Amino acid sequence: MINIVSTGPGQQDCMSYEAVEAIKQSDVIVGYKKYIELITPLIHEQEVFYNGMKKEVDRCKKALAFAKAGKTVAMVSGGDAGIYGIGGIMQEIVLEEQSDIEVRCYPGITSAHAAAAVLGAPIVHDSVYISLSDLLTDIEVIKKRLHAAGMGDFITCIYNPKSKGRPHYISMARDILLEYKDSQTPVGIVKNARRDNQEVYITTLQDMCDVPIDMSSMVIVGNGDTYVKNGKMITPRGYRR
Amino acid sequence: MINIVSTGPGQQDCMSYEAVEAIKQSDVIVGYKKYIELITPLIHEQEVFYNGMKKEVDRCKKALAFAKAGKTVAMVSGGDAGIYGIGGIMQEIVLEEQSDIEVRCYPGITSAHAAAAVLGAPIVHDSVYISLSDLLTDIEVIKKRLHAAGMGDFITCIYNPKSKGRPHYISMARDILLEYKDSQTPVGIVKNARRDNQEVYITTLQDMCDVPIDMSSMVIVGNGDTYVKNGKMITPRGYRR
Repeated sequence: MINIVSTGPGQQDCMSYEAVEAIKQSDVIVGYKKYIELITPLIHEQEVFYNGMKKEVDRCKKALAFAKAGKTVAMVSGGDAGIYGIGGIMQEIVLEEQSDIEVRCYPGITSAHAAAAVLGAPIVHDSVYISLSDLLTDIEVIKKRLHAAGMGDFITCIYNPKSKGRPHYISMARDILLEYKDSQTPVGIVKNARRDNQEVYITTLQDMCDVPIDMSSMVIVGNGDTYVKNGKMITPRGYRR
Repeated sequence: MINIVSTGPGQQDCMSYEAVEAIKQSDVIVGYKKYIELITPLIHEQEVFYNGMKKEVDRCKKALAFAKAGKTVAMVSGGDAGIYGIGGIMQEIVLEEQSDIEVRCYPGITSAHAAAAVLGAPIVHDSVYISLSDLLTDIEVIKKRLHAAGMGDFITCIYNPKSKGRPHYISMARDILLEYKDSQTPVGIVKNARRDNQEVYITTLQDMCDVPIDMSSMVIVGNGDTYVKNGKMITPRGYRR
């Protein structure tokens, strides 16, 4: 049995009851090191297996091996495991092996939604979610999607906005969006949303790259109606029209 | 004090610990009738105010009046209050009145993510979220966004896909997406995701309108890589390349 468990920002407050139960009642917890550390208060007698970035396939194979040995596995993933999380590859590996191991998915709060709740209500209307990581996606596909996000005047949530290996992608994203959006479009950036070391910035599309951004940041670019008032970033749904 | 509380699909299992606490510790619970009914087990001594669809502005004004009278209000919203939920207009009304009432937002599991966890892992890559409701959005804007969703080969999550007043919008959406996506693109449709009366359908873009769809349905259209195997709908992130 493999439970794919979304842990949201990480602490129990922001996790669902069923996700917490699935972790508590597992024999083994498997996950990326950072996500395991965030849920330390939930770890008691369970066995723990973790590894690092780019080891996702190995991690999933390990989880499957534990499950085949009769153990109840909690494969944990920050945010929602189904949104850029481990949920996809874990299920692909079970399907490839034609294993009859049962897999259950426990949804959670993805980082864009945790960040939005901190900023105000920036994503109340139509939105797109794009990752700038080119590890698994061709940069030309990423560019095409940024253009489509601009064309559709979508609220744009940018995952994995900046890493050491690709520091300039975020300015590329800004430049593409500037082809369609006003330079004063509000942008909210939340680093470590709903974690102890949370940082919040509200800026504009033009100036967004002046704010410190890293892989723990969520960048939310507004649509043509988004405004900032009293430190809150709001995209109207249209009730006032 | 107004707590904007996301209740996800509705039952406690899928709610965050902090959301449940905010409801339990409120003096008054305010919300749309259906969302209030779903959280009945959490209602004990709290006062309750509910009303119907299209009464959102009145509901928010009522919540603000309760808060001004010194009560702790839980304004509840199904899914995530910040994703097509009451979170936006509630904050707009507080800002308009220049009230110094404190507002806190409790994020939750939006219906696309609840549905995705039921279907497998359909939204693991870049995605768009579009509502087909034209109550608050011009139909031409909706069409433009559907074209952009197709152009960008995004996974496309359709909120409010069909109501009695606009039964044909879902076939319009299908037809626009068919200009860009293969007719055999997998489509997952979940009605009442993670509620007692859940219904799950996996079909294709071409045939999606043959499935019963209503306002309680979430429609998830895959991207060019999405596949169906053993009843699971999966969009690969690319780890296998």
